[in-house]
Amino acid sequence: MRNFTIALDAMGGDFGPHISLPASLKSLQKHPNLTLIIVGDSQQITPLLQTYHLSDHTRVKFVHAPEIITMEDDPVLVLRHRSQSSMLVALQLVAEGKADACVSAGNTGALMLLAKYILKTIKGISRPALVSAIPNKKGNNTYFMDLGANLQCECDTLFNFAVMGSVLCEKVESRSKPNVALLNIGRENNKGSDSIKHCASLLKETKYINYTGFVEANELFDGDADVIVTDGFSGNIALKSYEGMGRLFLSELKKAINTNWYTRLLGKLLNPLIKNQLKHLHPDLYNGASLVGLCGIVVKSHGGANVDAFSHAIDQATKEIQWQIPSCISTRLASVSAERDCLLHE
Amino acid sequence: MRNFTIALDAMGGDFGPHISLPASLKSLQKHPNLTLIIVGDSQQITPLLQTYHLSDHTRVKFVHAPEIITMEDDPVLVLRHRSQSSMLVALQLVAEGKADACVSAGNTGALMLLAKYILKTIKGISRPALVSAIPNKKGNNTYFMDLGANLQCECDTLFNFAVMGSVLCEKVESRSKPNVALLNIGRENNKGSDSIKHCASLLKETKYINYTGFVEANELFDGDADVIVTDGFSGNIALKSYEGMGRLFLSELKKAINTNWYTRLLGKLLNPLIKNQLKHLHPDLYNGASLVGLCGIVVKSHGGANVDAFSHAIDQATKEIQWQIPSCISTRLASVSAERDCLLHE
Repeated sequence: MRNFTIALDAMGGDFGPHISLPASLKSLQKHPNLTLIIVGDSQQITPLLQTYHLSDHTRVKFVHAPEIITMEDDPVLVLRHRSQSSMLVALQLVAEGKADACVSAGNTGALMLLAKYILKTIKGISRPALVSAIPNKKGNNTYFMDLGANLQCECDTLFNFAVMGSVLCEKVESRSKPNVALLNIGRENNKGSDSIKHCASLLKETKYINYTGFVEANELFDGDADVIVTDGFSGNIALKSYEGMGRLFLSELKKAINTNWYTRLLGKLLNPLIKNQLKHLHPDLYNGASLVGLCGIVVKSHGGANVDAFSHAIDQATKEIQWQIPSCISTRLASVSAERDCLLHE
Repeated sequence: MRNFTIALDAMGGDFGPHISLPASLKSLQKHPNLTLIIVGDSQQITPLLQTYHLSDHTRVKFVHAPEIITMEDDPVLVLRHRSQSSMLVALQLVAEGKADACVSAGNTGALMLLAKYILKTIKGISRPALVSAIPNKKGNNTYFMDLGANLQCECDTLFNFAVMGSVLCEKVESRSKPNVALLNIGRENNKGSDSIKHCASLLKETKYINYTGFVEANELFDGDADVIVTDGFSGNIALKSYEGMGRLFLSELKKAINTNWYTRLLGKLLNPLIKNQLKHLHPDLYNGASLVGLCGIVVKSHGGANVDAFSHAIDQATKEIQWQIPSCISTRLASVSAERDCLLHE
């Protein structure tokens, strides 16, 4: 892979540079062709670059940005009032061609709005969408979108999600003709809103998408679909609902194991096996949601991500740079649009 | 508690009378004041009443209904073509005052439509909503709705869900002033659709609801909210998403335990503890979703319910009869409506 550069919003997330900097070091060790432009407040960052062995690193650059966008900042106001923020400056580096991608753990709403304003969207896309890999029973990844960027979606928006998700999965996971499904409240054709039913009929028509039908939310983890598409409200609800159940399950399991000394001993003996079996469900492995539909690569890390998880978000950006995802999406959208024009004139 | 009668659609669900009849026996033993009217095809039911020790039971009546509504039947067509179905006849027994409630494990869409047509909705409610208890970390029940009856919901519909859910939880769980929350993609006031934001402002105004704000789907199981309200699409997605994760978790845990003879032995020793700790999450305990907003009590059992789960749905109907839920909901809706009129004229 050729040399490439990622601009890192070092200040975002619950722990700011205390996570983003050690994660940077980890990623630089993993990717020998990677250069990182660390963007943040020099007063805070400069001493920490020393602490995390990054100050003399040949593949690390630093750009000062004195302002920080907090989780409480209203996305609509950040454009006007946070022009010197680490997030905005990092995105500008991508827009100016100085970086190939931007990674941030900051305020999602602000990142969406700034990314759209600074990088612009691909022709045919009005707003970027948020997509992430989720685990499945087959041990590989299912791409699930939208995770909260577009609350209510008309038929065409859902259709474009399907195109973009399909391209992302095909390239990043090297899966030819990924199976694409629509999330619905039943598998039967008459189920769901008019938008979903109409979208299903469009997906059946195009040769560019391997549409397999509706799936219900209890089938999210079956692995039969490589890409699952829904509106941002439902996607966010589904994602957080299963995360909540996962945590509830783990805490109840821990309680059972901590009943007395005897169960603690049994638990200790079983623990490595359980950890090993559950490791492919670990949220760290799925950290890094991609903002697709932009003329540039932006990956959002979870605000509470630890070093491994944040580094995983950088990995995701790396893969998208390798495959030039925005350009692939743009080409595919143009082909699909041409195909739809043909069908309309037939 | 006074004597009461439940009409049972014995034919619905994946296993029909092979589940509904043994569940009937179980419920009759549990509730000495309960009489059951078993509705179904006499050719199939009569010999089975013998098998399940119900043929000579003093508190069992039987009503013949030759037709069955299948899961594949289009709800819109059942009214015209399935007038002799067990589901429709059971609902009619409630409408005629011969039964206090109806329990069915049949086609949900058909049950919704038939119930609305036969029992009519309470004043101010245009369609019934589907509500079920879900487990929480505090070890009690959270009422969650709508589970799929009303796909897209305007502000007033969500508001009415909050009123109905609040009444149900207050009575059935004996919880005074239950905490009511709206499911959203964030806790901040600016998050979510216009309907949700508007509904939040209405809920803050009324003295009849103890509104506590937005919750995210990962907080569904925290137990801070007694009632959580969302539209039917998102509710169905949230419910099935966490069920899917629960199943994935269990199957991975089983795989870990089945690695070799040694782990199987450890697992066998830990199993009773784990089962005991997880028993309050068992889906059987939450079987029985109530159709609220109707002028009558209808409880929907899961189609794949086993005997214990089906019997739990009958328990749910019993509690709603005890508290005369439709009448309580009707009174509360009238009070809330009067309060809103006052506020408008202030």
